[in-house]
Amino acid sequence: MPPDRSLADRVIAGDPRAVARAISLVEAEGPEAASLVRRLFGQTGRATLIGVTGAPGTGKSTLVDRLIGVIRRNERRVGVLAVDPTSPFSGGAMLGDRVRMSGHGADPGVFIRSMATRGQLGGLSRTTADAAIVLDAAGMEVVLVETVGVGQDEVEIAATADVTIVLLAPGGGDELQALKAGVMEIGDLFVVNKADLPGADRAVQAVAASLALREPGRGDWQPPVLRTAAVSGSGVDELWREIERFVDWSALRRRTRRRTREGARLRDLLARRFLRHVDEVLADGTFARAVDAVSARELDPYSAVADLMEQAISRRSGSDRQ
Amino acid sequence: MPPDRSLADRVIAGDPRAVARAISLVEAEGPEAASLVRRLFGQTGRATLIGVTGAPGTGKSTLVDRLIGVIRRNERRVGVLAVDPTSPFSGGAMLGDRVRMSGHGADPGVFIRSMATRGQLGGLSRTTADAAIVLDAAGMEVVLVETVGVGQDEVEIAATADVTIVLLAPGGGDELQALKAGVMEIGDLFVVNKADLPGADRAVQAVAASLALREPGRGDWQPPVLRTAAVSGSGVDELWREIERFVDWSALRRRTRRRTREGARLRDLLARRFLRHVDEVLADGTFARAVDAVSARELDPYSAVADLMEQAISRRSGSDRQ
Repeated sequence: MPPDRSLADRVIAGDPRAVARAISLVEAEGPEAASLVRRLFGQTGRATLIGVTGAPGTGKSTLVDRLIGVIRRNERRVGVLAVDPTSPFSGGAMLGDRVRMSGHGADPGVFIRSMATRGQLGGLSRTTADAAIVLDAAGMEVVLVETVGVGQDEVEIAATADVTIVLLAPGGGDELQALKAGVMEIGDLFVVNKADLPGADRAVQAVAASLALREPGRGDWQPPVLRTAAVSGSGVDELWREIERFVDWSALRRRTRRRTREGARLRDLLARRFLRHVDEVLADGTFARAVDAVSARELDPYSAVADLMEQAISRRSGSDRQ
Repeated sequence: MPPDRSLADRVIAGDPRAVARAISLVEAEGPEAASLVRRLFGQTGRATLIGVTGAPGTGKSTLVDRLIGVIRRNERRVGVLAVDPTSPFSGGAMLGDRVRMSGHGADPGVFIRSMATRGQLGGLSRTTADAAIVLDAAGMEVVLVETVGVGQDEVEIAATADVTIVLLAPGGGDELQALKAGVMEIGDLFVVNKADLPGADRAVQAVAASLALREPGRGDWQPPVLRTAAVSGSGVDELWREIERFVDWSALRRRTRRRTREGARLRDLLARRFLRHVDEVLADGTFARAVDAVSARELDPYSAVADLMEQAISRRSGSDRQ
């Protein structure tokens, strides 16, 4: 199907329904999505991408909700992508975890969207990147991406943002679990939320101690460890100021970071495209026979792949030049 | 470096130090890993792979520890791969979450290993699959894979096991969060752990209600919803009986499931190998120029990839025939 030209135009004009439809296309990962991103891409690169990651129960969604409020008071348009399956933005929180959405739904300067968490081979980070492009093209000046910070994809999504905020909460050894999950490496700012709870001091100390051990490599940026109580809003203004401070500080480095991000994205798209090529040129039974042989233990997977690779590269498919 | 022939022999002989070294090689994802898997692969296919997945705090590690006890009482050798970064097996639980390891460390019939959770492009599911091959080749009759069940990779790992156990705990709406994360689709058995806590009945009912809505597609297998209290060991023997019942029931289907698993694995390896090919043949600046153009918004990523794909397929590299 030819791309819907007017859809791209409507996205660029900021039409929320067009934005919603564009993100749905992107999630479906079809050829229409590629055409759409092609049309939108030249209009992007202006939005600041902020990743907010943390384990379930750290209060990410409430904090994101508060950040939306601050961003809107600064009269900037904001898009939210909730990749976290437990986020109330994703419809994932119920009962005891009531959403404290401050009525942003009626604000045309706010666009909130949950991303499906099912997919294959890094599909989630790819579709989230494309959704961020849609929001950027639609004129959102800030894009908040909320991820759960446990899975690999989720950590990667947060790591490729312009600013990455790692959220922790006191108690239960959660702060230490986060350290183990490797998310300490990716944070530009650390936030101990629920700072009114017992154990907040210990959590702040644990984070600071861990940061002291972290390998340098971000120049002279020393990630601050902030305290917030998102439910009351305490500390959120200061967090926003620190985010802006980091954005200013990192202006020169941002180019390098985005270059890294685009490189990873191209590799991911290349891998996916190659698999589509494989599906076309080895669909004559070549691939199925290899799977049979491996399943029967007659052939090991690495030898099978060496042979399949050889054949895939030597054959052409109709879509290779698309 | 040529593959270490004696390492494969020592793995097959069940030498725990060789197994440990082999898994380290597999985690490093180098050419040695491929050679090793090639040598081991013919000796595999006998182990039953059991995935245990659930959100942090549901008591996975304690349950896995109890299952190890039951499996050993049945005089079967067992390997454990802890993919969960919060697992005490991974060294990820501290303070309030003391490990209740029942001294399996001294038992030569038990091999426990944590898998690093960092990697790129599905690296975790690939290295876990290879580590399972090592354990299988080493004569482990059961391989337990503990995953956190939140991230995409982690869910995929669990989904490709011969038996997938989804663990939940009462209270806090956790049971509903699990439903949202999509893990309901992959379970062969559901376990409400901490069944002595208030809310266990509600959790069991929530799971049963959700299962009633699940699309059929597993023949006449009705996933049981079991109750355990892993700390006391209550319900664990019954869980093991149900696992064996599923294994018996699914004997014929297991071939299909493993075939699906091997197919996904071949695709994943193909994608990775193609990227290695890209790194070799486009290292003359072709790839870097594309990244520059995309970063500068002069070229969109999909157009860039179409061009890179064309060039990558038409060039040969030295390692393609390895």
